[in-house]
Amino acid sequence: MGLIVQKFGGTSVGTVERIRNVAAKAISEFKAGNQVVVAVSAMSGETNRLVGLVEDISESYNKREYDVVVSAGEQVSIGLLAIAIESMGYKARSYLGWQVRFLTDDVSSKARILEVEAFKIKRDLDAGSIIIVAGFQGIDNEGNITTLGRGGSDTSAVALAAALKADRCDIYTDVDGVYTTDPRMVPQARKMDKISYDEMLEMASLGAKVLQTRSVELAKKYSVPLRVLSSMEEGEGTMLIGEDKTMEKVMVSAVAYNRDEAKITVQGVPDKTGVAATIFGALSDANIVVDMIIQNVSESGETDLTFTVPKGDYTQAMETLKGPINEIGARSIKGNPEIAKVSAIGVGMRSHSGVAQKMFKALASDGINIQMISTSEIKVSVIIDEKYTELAVRSLHQAFELDKDVGDRVGG
Amino acid sequence: MGLIVQKFGGTSVGTVERIRNVAAKAISEFKAGNQVVVAVSAMSGETNRLVGLVEDISESYNKREYDVVVSAGEQVSIGLLAIAIESMGYKARSYLGWQVRFLTDDVSSKARILEVEAFKIKRDLDAGSIIIVAGFQGIDNEGNITTLGRGGSDTSAVALAAALKADRCDIYTDVDGVYTTDPRMVPQARKMDKISYDEMLEMASLGAKVLQTRSVELAKKYSVPLRVLSSMEEGEGTMLIGEDKTMEKVMVSAVAYNRDEAKITVQGVPDKTGVAATIFGALSDANIVVDMIIQNVSESGETDLTFTVPKGDYTQAMETLKGPINEIGARSIKGNPEIAKVSAIGVGMRSHSGVAQKMFKALASDGINIQMISTSEIKVSVIIDEKYTELAVRSLHQAFELDKDVGDRVGG
Repeated sequence: MGLIVQKFGGTSVGTVERIRNVAAKAISEFKAGNQVVVAVSAMSGETNRLVGLVEDISESYNKREYDVVVSAGEQVSIGLLAIAIESMGYKARSYLGWQVRFLTDDVSSKARILEVEAFKIKRDLDAGSIIIVAGFQGIDNEGNITTLGRGGSDTSAVALAAALKADRCDIYTDVDGVYTTDPRMVPQARKMDKISYDEMLEMASLGAKVLQTRSVELAKKYSVPLRVLSSMEEGEGTMLIGEDKTMEKVMVSAVAYNRDEAKITVQGVPDKTGVAATIFGALSDANIVVDMIIQNVSESGETDLTFTVPKGDYTQAMETLKGPINEIGARSIKGNPEIAKVSAIGVGMRSHSGVAQKMFKALASDGINIQMISTSEIKVSVIIDEKYTELAVRSLHQAFELDKDVGDRVGG
Repeated sequence: MGLIVQKFGGTSVGTVERIRNVAAKAISEFKAGNQVVVAVSAMSGETNRLVGLVEDISESYNKREYDVVVSAGEQVSIGLLAIAIESMGYKARSYLGWQVRFLTDDVSSKARILEVEAFKIKRDLDAGSIIIVAGFQGIDNEGNITTLGRGGSDTSAVALAAALKADRCDIYTDVDGVYTTDPRMVPQARKMDKISYDEMLEMASLGAKVLQTRSVELAKKYSVPLRVLSSMEEGEGTMLIGEDKTMEKVMVSAVAYNRDEAKITVQGVPDKTGVAATIFGALSDANIVVDMIIQNVSESGETDLTFTVPKGDYTQAMETLKGPINEIGARSIKGNPEIAKVSAIGVGMRSHSGVAQKMFKALASDGINIQMISTSEIKVSVIIDEKYTELAVRSLHQAFELDKDVGDRVGG
């Protein structure tokens, strides 16, 4: 007998009919001989409705009270799901964040989980009940309701799985798994049977929006076997696990892209201490997050400094930098919002050389110029002209043979 | 400096604009130098929406989970009200039932309050905050959410006022006070400045729907000065208090009526032990509540037994009694759903004779036949033909001079 944690998002519990469907999935796992804990979000649209009410009352609001209002959404869905399961003849019991309890820090609206108590849930599981837990919410040390931020229900589910030492945590969503790249862009994209936590983290930070990053970090920290699968279709989904030997054979597992960045180049920067601090300090004060940074120190004593910022902050960044540019005595500043970042990701890179080379060769053969390069232990990212995004993604997907099964690949 | 508990129902917090209006009322009381605690219901329509969702999922449902779902309504309104008060520049803090905590028994959906903890609220009041408390909900000893039944927010407010030793509990509602009788029926009906708890209890049980009966019982038990007033218009409303000397001067304070009962007469009942038990046992088994009962033992050894039941249960009651009637050997059964109960209520009756006589005389002079009579210490009720309801109410209102100020009345 195993212990399975299931998580269903707002779309999966959006109607009475869909709640019955979720109840059936929980019961099916229970009938297979497992203990089952289900974490659920608010019914789709409900959190937006509650946030709308808060914003209608006041543009600026107390975050503690905001959390009181928005956490009511999950309270409704857990009760309804418990009633649905009982109406099908099985025992169920719902738990709110404070009832579990999900102890968090006191940062309203963006709380982090400190501890999940497991004993009440274990007692009720042993008594034969299916347990329903409200995602997204917790309680701080003073007894205030807190929420974990948008998408926080994924993190709730993983934290529960860790506290209960679950055999698996199944995240039901509207896609049937994690793909080698965006299937809307590359028809040959292949659903992966498994992927490592680190690769998933890179994919999430590079623009793939399947799971909340914090939930993957938590799963990695506590080695929770995490599965992403569809709540609408049958299928095995994609398992997130620690690295194993099969993985090491593969250089690249997936290709990701992100068109939400813009590039800024400060030209003729004097090669003096404190120059970079002045530029990035000004951006940080304006709450602008910088992603890739490249600087080549030249022999002439001055250099170009290039970096990327979110596209939505591009205009403000150019404005913010006018003063600092004068201050440090740089020659000029120029920017380009029409770029894309394309990345190859794979834990196999650690033990294989040649990934970057293969990548550059593939792009060159399609006539795509590389503007910036950034590497980490398990990914290579390049900045290219935005209009070549699709071409580049397809080119790399083919070059690394991602359409083929892992066993059939040549690479490495 | 006083401590005032205010209670606002669903209509009073039904829109963002109305929530701001409630915020202004709380602030106004605060600016007058008082500490203020506000108990609120769910936004109007919200509880019905949540109950509808539960019933869509399953016709029969676990009451614990029902309470989890429906208590979410108040959670939304308290957070919104706290945000509204803060947006107007005053400190506010919301409390859910379990946060206060409102300890209740474990009877889901109809819980009774056992204890209200006051220390957290007192601490926050002393820190200068206006406190907002979710009505209708509590927590049992096991940490389960409970609700108090429809209209339970009145009881929440009174229980808070008792626990905090409040100087007054103001129940804001959609009427501007308690009237001598239904003003839609008698244009001369007068809003009373005050009324005793006992009179209010009789009025509630006789059909006047201003306050939840339990809230009045609780106010009486803890001598909470309770005021009923309008949330939409200015005005002093009606104070509910213990009996005082002015009241004793008045024989009758109000006239109430109820058209929701039906009359049943069992004829030719043998005068034997156990006969009444057979009849009323059968009705009780069918969950039919009997109100007035009259039996005159005759000299012939048989008698007629007459009683009233809710009009909605009339057909079922007639059906249910067929068997028992045969069993006890009664001659026949006949019923009449077209009746009304009209009552005169007043604590002054205790010290005055002649109320019943005056009542019968007034009805007789208007040609209204009395079918049944029932009396208690502070009320006289009669059953009459339904078509005379309005005539009887007007006749009694005039006979007891209820349109005149208390000081101007002759009676007693």
